[in-house]
Amino acid sequence: MSIDKVGSFGFVAEPFHVDFTGRLTMSVLGNHLLNCAGFHAADRGFGMATLNDYHYTWVLSRLAIELERMPRQYEKFTIQTWVENVYRLFTDRNYAILDEQGNPLGYARSIWAMISMETRKPTDLLSLHGGSIVDYICQDKECPIDRPGKIKVSDEHPVGEYRAQYSDIDINGHVNSIKYIEHILDLFPMEMFKTKQIKRFEMAYSAESYYGDTLSFYRDEVKTDEYDIEVKKNAGDIVCRSKVIFI
Amino acid sequence: MSIDKVGSFGFVAEPFHVDFTGRLTMSVLGNHLLNCAGFHAADRGFGMATLNDYHYTWVLSRLAIELERMPRQYEKFTIQTWVENVYRLFTDRNYAILDEQGNPLGYARSIWAMISMETRKPTDLLSLHGGSIVDYICQDKECPIDRPGKIKVSDEHPVGEYRAQYSDIDINGHVNSIKYIEHILDLFPMEMFKTKQIKRFEMAYSAESYYGDTLSFYRDEVKTDEYDIEVKKNAGDIVCRSKVIFI
Repeated sequence: MSIDKVGSFGFVAEPFHVDFTGRLTMSVLGNHLLNCAGFHAADRGFGMATLNDYHYTWVLSRLAIELERMPRQYEKFTIQTWVENVYRLFTDRNYAILDEQGNPLGYARSIWAMISMETRKPTDLLSLHGGSIVDYICQDKECPIDRPGKIKVSDEHPVGEYRAQYSDIDINGHVNSIKYIEHILDLFPMEMFKTKQIKRFEMAYSAESYYGDTLSFYRDEVKTDEYDIEVKKNAGDIVCRSKVIFI
Repeated sequence: MSIDKVGSFGFVAEPFHVDFTGRLTMSVLGNHLLNCAGFHAADRGFGMATLNDYHYTWVLSRLAIELERMPRQYEKFTIQTWVENVYRLFTDRNYAILDEQGNPLGYARSIWAMISMETRKPTDLLSLHGGSIVDYICQDKECPIDRPGKIKVSDEHPVGEYRAQYSDIDINGHVNSIKYIEHILDLFPMEMFKTKQIKRFEMAYSAESYYGDTLSFYRDEVKTDEYDIEVKKNAGDIVCRSKVIFI
């Protein structure tokens, strides 16, 4: 295994980043994972800053996180990240979340596309920088969690509604990927987090939403403690879907 | 000036921590300031972890931030922090926010009390650890911004309402100090942040609020671009007040 294909980044669970149980929140973990992807890609010439010069940008399509447990307040932890596969239009990036002793707390999988900032259309990853992105593929590191799966919601009555505000909006003018995680988990009552923890969390991003958009949240309990969630904007397009499995 | 009285911590403005203008959000800056206070106090034996053993905890009473400009996405910046004064029941902790070249981007002032975790009553700072906290006072470092001032709201019609949810609540079971900043700034329309920036921001914390509490936001425009805000819970007690000055 070529270790330099794996990026490694240290963190500590800060007081305002843990929930009432004292464990890191899923949205903060998601933020750290996306930052690690950014750092790791930047070090290899595929970061946002470099890409922007060529008028390309990375877009997160799927994210799946599966955990034994979340880091606790003040606990130090490490996130490792590596590229598992590169296809023409998508790349699979994986993560391991490790405790201070290097034991896995959990794993994550993400799927990214690269789009042109002008046309917003996906571009061919294999043609970029003479195809050098494939040099960073690392297939000998294990990520023992399922790939992102199908999420389907049939309920037609929203369980929640939210109007996108100033603090939801990122530099691109979109509701940021992390804020959806927060709003989705806020659909669940406190009791849920008191008695259970999240075993697996998935996001599938389909469309952008903007300042002032009304987001409606639909939810099916697929089986006990497993929920599929769909977010629509302005009673129309699907913005994203999520799966939350508690244990 | 004894430099070891001043703590110094490095940061970078992360993509999900900047707003649609590409500048660090006030709530993220507030979070960093409070973390720096925590790190700095912990290094000197007055951190939360140590205090909790003695059943004491720090409580933030006031925060005032004044800025030339906010760090921009991916910009590196440094936060310095030091203790300016220690009184029997309060301590003044100041901050400088510096750019990569060490030029000030802004300053902040905070006022803290220490309370007993059992009685929730303030304790005498000067009697703790044999009064050794005064050894950390640093009065030869300048903090050229006004102290937190008076905030008074007379309007009786709320401009916003919000029900505290899972993601608002910290390890103590309270709405966390940083989330109030987010909710207060969400009272302003996007136009405000498009054309102006925040010159000065103040918070005054009076009472705790909890999961399920309805927070009502009252606002006076004291003068052009200067707003006083008051947050009440369940149409009763004042939870906190804030002043926002745009330029």
